[in-house]
Amino acid sequence: MPLPAVPLFAGLGVALAERIHAIGRLLTAAEGEVLFRQGAYSEYLHVLLDGQVALSGTSADGSSAIVELVRPGEHFVLTAVLAAQPYRMTAVAVARSRLLLINAAALLRLMDSEPELAAALRRSVSREFAAMVRQVRDLKTRTLPQRLGCYLLGLLPDGTAETADFRLPFDKGLLAGRLGCRRENLSRGFVMLRQHGVETHGSRVILHDIPRLKAFAIPDADAMPPE
Amino acid sequence: MPLPAVPLFAGLGVALAERIHAIGRLLTAAEGEVLFRQGAYSEYLHVLLDGQVALSGTSADGSSAIVELVRPGEHFVLTAVLAAQPYRMTAVAVARSRLLLINAAALLRLMDSEPELAAALRRSVSREFAAMVRQVRDLKTRTLPQRLGCYLLGLLPDGTAETADFRLPFDKGLLAGRLGCRRENLSRGFVMLRQHGVETHGSRVILHDIPRLKAFAIPDADAMPPE
Repeated sequence: MPLPAVPLFAGLGVALAERIHAIGRLLTAAEGEVLFRQGAYSEYLHVLLDGQVALSGTSADGSSAIVELVRPGEHFVLTAVLAAQPYRMTAVAVARSRLLLINAAALLRLMDSEPELAAALRRSVSREFAAMVRQVRDLKTRTLPQRLGCYLLGLLPDGTAETADFRLPFDKGLLAGRLGCRRENLSRGFVMLRQHGVETHGSRVILHDIPRLKAFAIPDADAMPPE
Repeated sequence: MPLPAVPLFAGLGVALAERIHAIGRLLTAAEGEVLFRQGAYSEYLHVLLDGQVALSGTSADGSSAIVELVRPGEHFVLTAVLAAQPYRMTAVAVARSRLLLINAAALLRLMDSEPELAAALRRSVSREFAAMVRQVRDLKTRTLPQRLGCYLLGLLPDGTAETADFRLPFDKGLLAGRLGCRRENLSRGFVMLRQHGVETHGSRVILHDIPRLKAFAIPDADAMPPE
């Protein structure tokens, strides 16, 4: 994925995108590679160009949860980078991945001279925050089948399609972690969604009736399509 | 609570605190008063001087959850204000409250000329984000009695005390909402915590053995005491 196709930088203009590229370096990570650990000093804004990354948080009691799964075109830990604070999560490449690592200090300097970039980054922080608020809210109020339905709908590139046929971008164990359930409950969630037109074969998902699934899961307007 | 005692502005110096005060206005809100609604344009950074505020999020399906409960000295919706984005939550004064409303546009201008203030606000955004990440993680992995134990420990002003005797700052219905459970499950949670030295009489809470409660709930170091 080329840099101008990354939503964070879209609309910033070619000259600025080149300056951002100039303070970044490409990294190829093997499956299972730890990109950074929670608590470490935040050195880079990470942009995932290809592959899959899981962000997980570990509590003081040692228990760990997947907080977010990252797909190509998305960036992560912007909030920590802007505040020069430690990473709040651990990032692992869960598939072979290609990333652009943007030097945090250089990015902060660039923001000072580029108000347009600064504004884009602040809007992105606000969206990251809103996504966390939405997760907190959904974990407290929505059932697992609803959360799963919303997640599936969020994977669709086209908000107006009536049907879809795609592969899950993540393995079901990771997806269960992201949704805050055990693997067996995820399977039960998929079974529950059958009556709303969701068919699965391994990682393949067929949505036979997207309006029906929407009517059941009721995704938030701002959660679909994903940023 | 005077402005210099507000953690967000502590350490910024008297002159700067006065300039912040000058772009703010005091508001007294009655119990039950809506301060702002999710989706509205973010006009003010709110600092709670006295009272109690509940921040709740509403999904597209109409279900609503308490995302956070705010106590005196805390501020809210900084992230939306800095990004000039709509409020992500609805704020309600759940007790008679006194607030300082800081004009968002004026605050952004002040940040431009005061790098120290800008840095303090960015750190605060990062802490707000970290608190949300922690909630997501805890909702996914920790049991309700653990979450309740961590919440009680987070209320203590002094991290080294061995015992404590205090009133819950919020009514138990609100607390249940914040922890993501039903009222009756909260009561069961308190019963479970008895064996870890937690005694309750109505809203009064006595912690007989804080180290024992810590050993059970294992709060995160950065979650205690609260910001």
